Amino acid sequence: MISLENKDIISILDFTKEEILYILDISKRMEEGEGSSEILKGKVLANLFFEPSTRTRLSFETAMKRLGGDVVGFDELGTTSTVKGESLRDSVKIIEGYCDIIVLRHFLEGASRLTADSVSIPVINGGDGASQHPTQTFVDLYTIKKEKGGLENLSIGFLGDLKYGRTAHSLAYALSNFGAEMYFISPPSLRIPKDYLEELESRNVSYHEVESLSEVSSKLDILYCTRIQKERFSDPVDYEKVRGIYKLSKAVMDELNVKEDLKILHPLPRVDEMDESLDDTSYAVYFQQAHSGIPVRKTLLAMVLGAIK
Amino acid sequence: MISLENKDIISILDFTKEEILYILDISKRMEEGEGSSEILKGKVLANLFFEPSTRTRLSFETAMKRLGGDVVGFDELGTTSTVKGESLRDSVKIIEGYCDIIVLRHFLEGASRLTADSVSIPVINGGDGASQHPTQTFVDLYTIKKEKGGLENLSIGFLGDLKYGRTAHSLAYALSNFGAEMYFISPPSLRIPKDYLEELESRNVSYHEVESLSEVSSKLDILYCTRIQKERFSDPVDYEKVRGIYKLSKAVMDELNVKEDLKILHPLPRVDEMDESLDDTSYAVYFQQAHSGIPVRKTLLAMVLGAIK
Amino acid sequence: MISLENKDIISILDFTKEEILYILDISKRMEEGEGSSEILKGKVLANLFFEPSTRTRLSFETAMKRLGGDVVGFDELGTTSTVKGESLRDSVKIIEGYCDIIVLRHFLEGASRLTADSVSIPVINGGDGASQHPTQTFVDLYTIKKEKGGLENLSIGFLGDLKYGRTAHSLAYALSNFGAEMYFISPPSLRIPKDYLEELESRNVSYHEVESLSEVSSKLDILYCTRIQKERFSDPVDYEKVRGIYKLSKAVMDELNVKEDLKILHPLPRVDEMDESLDDTSYAVYFQQAHSGIPVRKTLLAMVLGAIK
Repeated sequence: MISLENKDIISILDFTKEEILYILDISKRMEEGEGSSEILKGKVLANLFFEPSTRTRLSFETAMKRLGGDVVGFDELGTTSTVKGESLRDSVKIIEGYCDIIVLRHFLEGASRLTADSVSIPVINGGDGASQHPTQTFVDLYTIKKEKGGLENLSIGFLGDLKYGRTAHSLAYALSNFGAEMYFISPPSLRIPKDYLEELESRNVSYHEVESLSEVSSKLDILYCTRIQKERFSDPVDYEKVRGIYKLSKAVMDELNVKEDLKILHPLPRVDEMDESLDDTSYAVYFQQAHSGIPVRKTLLAMVLGAIK
Repeated sequence: MISLENKDIISILDFTKEEILYILDISKRMEEGEGSSEILKGKVLANLFFEPSTRTRLSFETAMKRLGGDVVGFDELGTTSTVKGESLRDSVKIIEGYCDIIVLRHFLEGASRLTADSVSIPVINGGDGASQHPTQTFVDLYTIKKEKGGLENLSIGFLGDLKYGRTAHSLAYALSNFGAEMYFISPPSLRIPKDYLEELESRNVSYHEVESLSEVSSKLDILYCTRIQKERFSDPVDYEKVRGIYKLSKAVMDELNVKEDLKILHPLPRVDEMDESLDDTSYAVYFQQAHSGIPVRKTLLAMVLGAIK
Repeated sequence: MISLENKDIISILDFTKEEILYILDISKRMEEGEGSSEILKGKVLANLFFEPSTRTRLSFETAMKRLGGDVVGFDELGTTSTVKGESLRDSVKIIEGYCDIIVLRHFLEGASRLTADSVSIPVINGGDGASQHPTQTFVDLYTIKKEKGGLENLSIGFLGDLKYGRTAHSLAYALSNFGAEMYFISPPSLRIPKDYLEELESRNVSYHEVESLSEVSSKLDILYCTRIQKERFSDPVDYEKVRGIYKLSKAVMDELNVKEDLKILHPLPRVDEMDESLDDTSYAVYFQQAHSGIPVRKTLLAMVLGAIK
């Protein structure tokens, strides 16, 4: 019996393969309209965004409201008591008295774990620092499963910023449960950190590091693109060196050797790395991926709040 | 049979005389309390304000909630993915997956049309750049009709900033359907642009351009004041030259030769152009005008969402 | 018969002893779950925060939603029409047409009274300038009554910034109805202003001014701590002189001579004045105090909106 009631969702690493598949299954039923009645009526979500993130904030807010619940919160640091010198721990210990569940977005690694340790209501990590963003990973997994019919034995390429790209790290960890063959495609300066590779090795994942997409493109079932995040670079010169190094477009895809049913995912927002011409190709599924944020987050909210047993 | 179901509301120019009158009629019934039950229950509005506008944002939000619907969104550019370099097109293509209808406020002309072309859900223009603000025009028309009993054959003066004042432009266009006599009263530097006048001429509108209000005041049924918008001037010296050039007050009205039933409208906010002493005169209807934002926007939301056929 | 229907809540001084006790009694029943159904369904609160205050804003918002009502508003000056030069009076006269009740937070003293005088719907003061914050005082009184079983004849110490600390001023006034013995403990530069003391004298309150907590600690039933608010000092040097002058911790409490059932309150946020080690002592009730914001604000909203007679 799998239950998430009153549990925190901090890291994708906390979930077993069985739990992941169960959550994706409920998400599918949620998308198909089952249980979309007012199962969260009377519940209040505190959406605490110490760092702006329109997409994540709005999708949690919409998910909660579509299930009959309500939402309070803030969308940036500037309007919080943090600017008066209040600690994160104090802020969340006060807010736990107002609401039934917290979604936290914070600029510091570990902020979600600290919050979960400080309060007695469940906490969902909406992204903390360059670290974890587990609900995005559930969205990514949901999209892959939907497009490919399953998660087992896929060849997946991770493209772009693999050094700071937390969504790529989390997805790689999650797919290590499913026998994936992984290709890490990045410039030398943005390679995936060693400790992630060591963790994948300990899980017997077969992986390859390359610089050129064309070298491995024909092998891929999934290409997971990431934005090279300007805000994670301390030196703008380093950013300028790598921005736009991989720029996908319809023309580029026409020249690449790829499987006909290759699907391209991206957590969005994109900047230079994918041209709008790509959007109308059969490869592009990133907008559908973004839209899947609703059924997946509905599911997580409903399960944690005990409305789905 | 007039229906707005699934239509976009981008410009007042897209509406026929019959459609305008129909919408005003439903708005009247909405104000009188008909249909104010939960006809939008289960619907979610995305209120996307890339530029602050308390009045427009709060009135849409209130209208939606008063009809049982719910609202998500943001109120300024700073908390959006635009600051990460995301295009408007991408932002709205993602958000369309969350909600049932979009209200957009943007600082660029044409942003609403671009949004409507990018998404498959209906879009309402909440003001884009110095261009269109159609729901304000419906509010203005509603107020005039309520105060005057009808819209036909009125003499209307437009006062103040007629160069940048988009609400004046839109209202002039709309009233061209109803045989209005128009007086454009402004300093030379803020005259109404030529292409608007040419459009009015092609619609056989009789108009006059003057600098002095007293010259034409006795003829007016309606005086539509506008704020001289500091934020539209690139040179502050140009702004200082014209601010406060027309300053209405009770004392000024006492000296002017005007019809007893003259009504003064203003889209608000006001700064220097109308003194608080004017508020208690029989001419002032601008606060009632602002309050009419609720029934009018309720009507537009309900019609576009198909809750009123 | 006590009724708050359609009344404004501007200052704790407007309430009689009987009204205060009645409100606290209803708050207790509210906390115990009575009347927590949808008694405010169809009502809209405008939460107008011209100055950020997460705690007050979120607790009003949560209280309203938990009673079935809805909320619109803003959380900072920057997104309002004030930046376009609009007066507070105009802003609230417009917004009164949208909603059923206003909660106002403003940086200027007297802003709530001005608002109440300008609109015909009820107004609750959510804190204006360094002046009044009456709902915080109700929360403080509620907590004291809950912890002590009653409000009569208590010895209470006020610690820290008694010059700018409006919550301390309001609580002292309120407790003057109940025969309290008061100890004002502060550095010379942050003593309670003379006119407050004169008012207390006229109410026959017995009080003492001291600099050292240890001098009077053994007498206290309640210790009310305040944050030394950096933002109220015009000179940062003055702030640095007094910050951290009273720093409570478990170790400090172990050395102080205090009653076993002493309770420490704080309106929060705290910065330097109370160490986290204090949180697990039996004295600390400030988080419970913060959580009481919900039943107390539910009560005030419901009474003013006539849902509780």
